[in-house]
Amino acid sequence: MMQAFVYNGPGKFALEQHARPEIMSPTDAIVRITKTTICGTDLHILKGDVPTCTPGRILGHEGVGVIDAVGSGVQAFKVGSRVLISCITACGKCDYCRRGMFSHCTTGGWILGNKIDGCQAEFVRIPYADTSLYPIPDGVDEEALVMLSDILPTGFECGVLNGKIAPGGTVAIVGSGPIGLAALLTAQFYSPAQLIMIDLDQSRLDVATRFGATDVINSSDGKAIEAVMALTDGRGVDTAIEAVGIPATFELCEGLIAPGGTIANIGVHGTKVELHLERLWDRNITITTRLVDTASTPMLLSLLKSNKIDAKRLITHHFKLDQILDAYDTFGHAARTSALKVIIEA
Amino acid sequence: MMQAFVYNGPGKFALEQHARPEIMSPTDAIVRITKTTICGTDLHILKGDVPTCTPGRILGHEGVGVIDAVGSGVQAFKVGSRVLISCITACGKCDYCRRGMFSHCTTGGWILGNKIDGCQAEFVRIPYADTSLYPIPDGVDEEALVMLSDILPTGFECGVLNGKIAPGGTVAIVGSGPIGLAALLTAQFYSPAQLIMIDLDQSRLDVATRFGATDVINSSDGKAIEAVMALTDGRGVDTAIEAVGIPATFELCEGLIAPGGTIANIGVHGTKVELHLERLWDRNITITTRLVDTASTPMLLSLLKSNKIDAKRLITHHFKLDQILDAYDTFGHAARTSALKVIIEA
Amino acid sequence: MMQAFVYNGPGKFALEQHARPEIMSPTDAIVRITKTTICGTDLHILKGDVPTCTPGRILGHEGVGVIDAVGSGVQAFKVGSRVLISCITACGKCDYCRRGMFSHCTTGGWILGNKIDGCQAEFVRIPYADTSLYPIPDGVDEEALVMLSDILPTGFECGVLNGKIAPGGTVAIVGSGPIGLAALLTAQFYSPAQLIMIDLDQSRLDVATRFGATDVINSSDGKAIEAVMALTDGRGVDTAIEAVGIPATFELCEGLIAPGGTIANIGVHGTKVELHLERLWDRNITITTRLVDTASTPMLLSLLKSNKIDAKRLITHHFKLDQILDAYDTFGHAARTSALKVIIEA
Amino acid sequence: MMQAFVYNGPGKFALEQHARPEIMSPTDAIVRITKTTICGTDLHILKGDVPTCTPGRILGHEGVGVIDAVGSGVQAFKVGSRVLISCITACGKCDYCRRGMFSHCTTGGWILGNKIDGCQAEFVRIPYADTSLYPIPDGVDEEALVMLSDILPTGFECGVLNGKIAPGGTVAIVGSGPIGLAALLTAQFYSPAQLIMIDLDQSRLDVATRFGATDVINSSDGKAIEAVMALTDGRGVDTAIEAVGIPATFELCEGLIAPGGTIANIGVHGTKVELHLERLWDRNITITTRLVDTASTPMLLSLLKSNKIDAKRLITHHFKLDQILDAYDTFGHAARTSALKVIIEA
Repeated sequence: MMQAFVYNGPGKFALEQHARPEIMSPTDAIVRITKTTICGTDLHILKGDVPTCTPGRILGHEGVGVIDAVGSGVQAFKVGSRVLISCITACGKCDYCRRGMFSHCTTGGWILGNKIDGCQAEFVRIPYADTSLYPIPDGVDEEALVMLSDILPTGFECGVLNGKIAPGGTVAIVGSGPIGLAALLTAQFYSPAQLIMIDLDQSRLDVATRFGATDVINSSDGKAIEAVMALTDGRGVDTAIEAVGIPATFELCEGLIAPGGTIANIGVHGTKVELHLERLWDRNITITTRLVDTASTPMLLSLLKSNKIDAKRLITHHFKLDQILDAYDTFGHAARTSALKVIIEA
Repeated sequence: MMQAFVYNGPGKFALEQHARPEIMSPTDAIVRITKTTICGTDLHILKGDVPTCTPGRILGHEGVGVIDAVGSGVQAFKVGSRVLISCITACGKCDYCRRGMFSHCTTGGWILGNKIDGCQAEFVRIPYADTSLYPIPDGVDEEALVMLSDILPTGFECGVLNGKIAPGGTVAIVGSGPIGLAALLTAQFYSPAQLIMIDLDQSRLDVATRFGATDVINSSDGKAIEAVMALTDGRGVDTAIEAVGIPATFELCEGLIAPGGTIANIGVHGTKVELHLERLWDRNITITTRLVDTASTPMLLSLLKSNKIDAKRLITHHFKLDQILDAYDTFGHAARTSALKVIIEA
Repeated sequence: MMQAFVYNGPGKFALEQHARPEIMSPTDAIVRITKTTICGTDLHILKGDVPTCTPGRILGHEGVGVIDAVGSGVQAFKVGSRVLISCITACGKCDYCRRGMFSHCTTGGWILGNKIDGCQAEFVRIPYADTSLYPIPDGVDEEALVMLSDILPTGFECGVLNGKIAPGGTVAIVGSGPIGLAALLTAQFYSPAQLIMIDLDQSRLDVATRFGATDVINSSDGKAIEAVMALTDGRGVDTAIEAVGIPATFELCEGLIAPGGTIANIGVHGTKVELHLERLWDRNITITTRLVDTASTPMLLSLLKSNKIDAKRLITHHFKLDQILDAYDTFGHAARTSALKVIIEA
Repeated sequence: MMQAFVYNGPGKFALEQHARPEIMSPTDAIVRITKTTICGTDLHILKGDVPTCTPGRILGHEGVGVIDAVGSGVQAFKVGSRVLISCITACGKCDYCRRGMFSHCTTGGWILGNKIDGCQAEFVRIPYADTSLYPIPDGVDEEALVMLSDILPTGFECGVLNGKIAPGGTVAIVGSGPIGLAALLTAQFYSPAQLIMIDLDQSRLDVATRFGATDVINSSDGKAIEAVMALTDGRGVDTAIEAVGIPATFELCEGLIAPGGTIANIGVHGTKVELHLERLWDRNITITTRLVDTASTPMLLSLLKSNKIDAKRLITHHFKLDQILDAYDTFGHAARTSALKVIIEA
């Protein structure tokens, strides 16, 4: 048996004793978790907003650990190997995987802590281990690595890469929560001239300034568009990153995008939005959506190893696995606790 | 004086005697029109739907002709040169022009037959002649060339290039009018495996089949999405081209796009549409809008010259300039006349 | 036991009785060959020019067949599945495979009929079966498919894709043998305006004309550069494809490339060449080399299935496996036999 | 009359009195030079190595100044405007200019201080002023701007952009002179993991370390390849930038490039090199050459304005125009003087 954080239906969850996972397929590995974390998506699951996740599920899709067992078909890892767990499970064989679009792997994708048991436990079963785990390079901090399971590749792929951020460009990120800050940190790989952060909460904007925003706009006065135009000679921004997931913030992006620009959506949306094609049809803009593929993980590992990013800046709190209810409480009340990402040691 | 087709306010228009245009700037040229045509946008103007176009304006932004006069700064053309007129006027100097985004030229863009007098006349003044006209290659049919002023670059740039059509890919084009057919013709430069044409009008779909569609779907039964899924093993299409410009057709595109696909909007929209981000946020899709830049004109000229496209297939009717009211009537009642593009000889 | 064509050292080879291959790793499959072919590289091996291929090796890296056995880790194929064999073996897991550069797979790449036994036999062992075999779509001709093991992806990836062939562009292919013709056939996916074929042998050029070349140049008079310049208004070509593999043909490509153009090397070179940087340093050109990755196989399968390419045009002769010595003789004396690709039925 | 530095044949040059330039075409402007500099190419001209540059020519193709007169067709600039002079003259109209390949403008390209009189004088005539000059943004240091005439766009376009430098990648720059250092500075816009500088001169390598090289290799022991392999786990580098222009350094790049990598040539070569296709044909590499287009100037201006690059680090010495012979002496003996770029105030 082992300890595991289990979702038991809307509003119901507990740290429970649970059977340890076992190898079910030759390509599986069992990982002993050393560090994991909580994602905003986990909070959505607890509210009952994610129908693919059914009661009885161990949550969590992020973490690092040590290989405890491997199936007969696993070739890249051995018992004892230290590994980074990707939030996306990739078979490496289907049409989508061949195109690097692992998020839509026909038998994988985002399944950990969703359709199968996840990482907020002492052990986790990882399908397609060879293509869903990464060896940990020597000398890389394990807590920093936990940020590579999901939040940094999400900010980077869905925001920075999709948003085609380029040297000298202008960028606005709407939403200065953990995912917006992950986009902010990784946007700097491409040296944009302006990195404008927009949020309603001044303390989050202060964090953004420390993390490298060139300008911050508190949008609580409803005048964010005017403020962006003032900062960009009336042109708007080349890249607008939506990092909230509600109609108001998406529509704000529509208002501040320059001709030829890109709106890169990261936010998880629960409802439709209005797309003002009557204003945008002739503006030569691009809008993108994306579930993270974690195809950029090798690149991010290289950047982490060479100290081009300080991923640990996203970590604000530490807990032990038996304190995970406290961890959820802290992470779930970020406005009060100023939590960004929490580390849970197993 | 010369003959010219003039917009005199919503619903009012006439073939009138009008002063001949004159050189107003050193970079201007005066072109004597030999052939012009009518665009769907001209019909919008006549209804009063295009506020930038004010009463008294000579319409038309397409055509070929002969240089009649040049300003002192014009270097690429001489009196007597045969030229193709681009629907987009490009100064060649502003930030947008330097990026090839001529549609947003700060002093040009779509101004012909809109903000300045246009081509449905015996003569037209072309600003920035060196960068807004193209020499006519020897041996190229002039009527075919008229299709390169607007409709073919629009279908190609806004639909085919923005839609990232690739060899072996699957494509659906919603709207089998002239612009959808222009996308259909130019899509074939990239050898997609499937080119599915969708429309409510069977006769237009019959044209599409003749023009190279691999499949046609009559969407009048409201089951176009199911039909596309049946044709694509349930995946949807890699590229969906919106060539109508109303909410229903845009939202149809949302329904038939495959994960990783692109919705390329060509349609001129007069109202907002619903973007179903609650379904699309994790589908890794791209949506593009674009006013044609005519940056592809040299490529299209090369393709025309080497007989890789039969542009004249789009031409269904011929008129003289003094029959232009008939031409408008024919073009404006395409359901009855089966008109695609009409040639007007000046 | 089974029949197999075996290389026994320079100049020595035979059709021999050989032990049937067996599963050696959980990710292996055994394929019963139904059709295979001979590659120019096989001729190089027979001469002793490929040091990685040691005596006793069964040759052949192309073919189609039926799954006869699978290892415990194989998930995509079952006994009885009809499969296309890729000439490149890909583990799907290493850094190169993750980047789609399967040719440099750290434990695969071109190993079939080279470092491990190959396809010119009744049975072959395929490592990493899930990522090195492709299911055969219904209704696709098996002989045409044999052209997808190596020659078409090689012509397409190393020549057409690396050469950035685009609609309306100008292309010269130096060498009208099988691989040059494969480039010629697949170049047409992108609708170039000019496809100029250059060779010393008129009968090969006649084939090129039938396969879609717009112009052919017999370079036996040493005036190919002048002829290309005459065809391109003195500019040279946008893409020059080297499909021979000797210094003279590479240096010919240097002479006929336009500013901004690309020289895409397909040829297997045995000696260094002279690169005239004193003429080319300021010409904004690109030179590429590539061992085929077969990353384009899904795209080519789609094109084959939709009849966008007639791959069988490359097949000139048919043999049974027990006639393979005749097949080698025919293929090895192409100047006399006009052989392009031969099909060997097992 | 004015002062001007004139090339009078191999080894002969002088600061002379010379007639002031005049407007010769409606698209010309006359610029009063405020600051200029000397390029390595100027030294080549003085030796007689640049046949296009004939005796009597005023040298110099870099600088900033103030518009003194404009032709009737100039629309973007007025007398008194402060401007940056691009080393490349672009008509903005020819096929090459339309493709952004200004270096090959059919009536422009590198003509300043080469085919027409240049910037090392009190005044210079700039053809095609609208597309060959850039307005100076407020608040940008003029000396830093002189680095944008040639050296920074050259390092950036020919080295960094052509070399496809990407976040997390590995880069080696062969040659730590001014142009190699310009590549080093601009490479950092893309956050590569390793930036290895290779040179024979330790003091130049010390400068490279201060400018951001992660590693430096003194290649005087002939073991640079081994040293690069030791730094890259035996793989070689993703990007090798040749910034010298002799066979030995180009061939060094061939030895240290990883499979899939790019050799970006910046060096001006006077003789052919050996290309070892017998080793490289199957390594999936790319080799590029380029004369700077200065198409990146707007991007570099934006980066300069937002302090993403400290361009003035390249400036080591200052002179007045009447000291230009001293300036040439200092710049021409860099090994002794440690000169990188010199500023000459007119």
